[in-house]
Amino acid sequence: MKLTILGCYAATPRTITNPTSQVLEIKNRMFLIDCGEGTQVQLRKNKIKFSRIEHIFISHLHGDHFYGLVGLISTFMLLNRQTDLHVYGPKGIKEVILLQLRLSNSYTGYNLYFHELESKESEVVFEDERVIIKTIPLRHRVYTNGFLFQEKNRERKLNIDAILNHDIETCYYQKIKYGGDITLEDGRVIPNEKLTFDPEPSRSYAFCSDTAYDESIVPIIENATVLYHESTFLESEEHLTEKTMHCTAKQAATIAKKANVEQLVLGHYSTRYDSIERFKSEAESVFPNILLADDGREFEF
Amino acid sequence: MKLTILGCYAATPRTITNPTSQVLEIKNRMFLIDCGEGTQVQLRKNKIKFSRIEHIFISHLHGDHFYGLVGLISTFMLLNRQTDLHVYGPKGIKEVILLQLRLSNSYTGYNLYFHELESKESEVVFEDERVIIKTIPLRHRVYTNGFLFQEKNRERKLNIDAILNHDIETCYYQKIKYGGDITLEDGRVIPNEKLTFDPEPSRSYAFCSDTAYDESIVPIIENATVLYHESTFLESEEHLTEKTMHCTAKQAATIAKKANVEQLVLGHYSTRYDSIERFKSEAESVFPNILLADDGREFEF
Repeated sequence: MKLTILGCYAATPRTITNPTSQVLEIKNRMFLIDCGEGTQVQLRKNKIKFSRIEHIFISHLHGDHFYGLVGLISTFMLLNRQTDLHVYGPKGIKEVILLQLRLSNSYTGYNLYFHELESKESEVVFEDERVIIKTIPLRHRVYTNGFLFQEKNRERKLNIDAILNHDIETCYYQKIKYGGDITLEDGRVIPNEKLTFDPEPSRSYAFCSDTAYDESIVPIIENATVLYHESTFLESEEHLTEKTMHCTAKQAATIAKKANVEQLVLGHYSTRYDSIERFKSEAESVFPNILLADDGREFEF
Repeated sequence: MKLTILGCYAATPRTITNPTSQVLEIKNRMFLIDCGEGTQVQLRKNKIKFSRIEHIFISHLHGDHFYGLVGLISTFMLLNRQTDLHVYGPKGIKEVILLQLRLSNSYTGYNLYFHELESKESEVVFEDERVIIKTIPLRHRVYTNGFLFQEKNRERKLNIDAILNHDIETCYYQKIKYGGDITLEDGRVIPNEKLTFDPEPSRSYAFCSDTAYDESIVPIIENATVLYHESTFLESEEHLTEKTMHCTAKQAATIAKKANVEQLVLGHYSTRYDSIERFKSEAESVFPNILLADDGREFEF
């Protein structure tokens, strides 16, 4: 599981920082999460192949999370993209993108699918044989979702010693991985649990930005491998959190602790601070495993 | 008259080049022309004060000329702008900007005026006591205008020797500058032409991008001090000009020559070329005074 931060600062793009966008690679799938202005340039800087992006998840329709989307869609067009593109985001996203394409007299040569979200409950928005993706309803000034990306590890691990003991042929291995029992030539049935170990626990990544402090997300993100949680403010600005519906680093850490995640990545820093190191120290007073997102940073989990 | 190029490359933004945007300072007024993605960051890089921008001119609704506008308008909001902002551009620009502000539940604290254009004839879109701005209808794949910025030099130059000869008091100088005759105490009338010289010729700046080769603009831009004309292609790609409705450097130079402008600035280069120097040499075979725009470059005229 690899996370590349393209941008992780709040509000306006600046010469040195970019608004929210990140790329998650999980089970060899690549997902783009949010798409602030300048995302396509950040993709180039981080040498991410445009053609690998087939699914884009937009948390909410504030500019610092989606003003780069229409440009990216247009660039895909100019690059003669052929593969389908799926965009998941709040209701309204389709109208605003299509209006802009229409005004510029542009037509995509690829299929562009919009999956508009309006539910206030967590729902599955994507599922294939390797990954399942659910929304995490967040509490912000406009309709907002985080996204939970979970590996699907259906396959059990082979107990090679036991399999060799019973002289089982290779062609049955796939059946065993999927939980099947084996009938030997002499008629004996070997139950699957004698031939396998439990699968590796599924890894998961929870993206939560933007949101006010909200414990109701804890059951959804519980035991996640990695939680990215917004931390717009330091404690000195805690009085701004409810009005703006953002969090402090310490509040993010409290959610991480309550949800028993393995690792917390902080981001969505207000640009008022000269350095982001204090976000780490303030969060560490609550939860030990803190990483700081920063533009261009890559994390492997 | 000062021209700052924020971006001058065609199509998609890249790590090293930006789509079209430029700032013209003329008679102490500042005008932003086009606003591709990333313009607000380019404004910051070039240390241009956001608050000085009160009028934004958009040539057409292709992404590389206006996808940065909504972000800039939002940033003005976050910076608590109070002064009015005027946006001039093709019909449709108002709907697309307001839709995005509505979706993000945002309201500008300043007055935002849209001046939507749909005329196919040149028309005056702005005029005050110092500057007059007219559209230059261009021939492109969507409705497009260039813009002609002209100084208004109404004031005649004082002939100080003649004025002192007649013992005329300082309080009359303004009247003389505006073309008034003077009646002396002995009743003699001194006609204005004895007291003044003709005004300095007005300087003007014509912005023409994007457009196919189109001689019908020549009468509008005739004798301009500076012409910025798109030159997307070199001669080797001339076969692409009619289909894409763009120009070669040589075609731009031909327009400059026919319009008898003083200076031609080339820009809107296709990103297929590694270097822009050949645009200059190809254009110079037709017209001598060629300057190459490039991102971050400033010109004083």
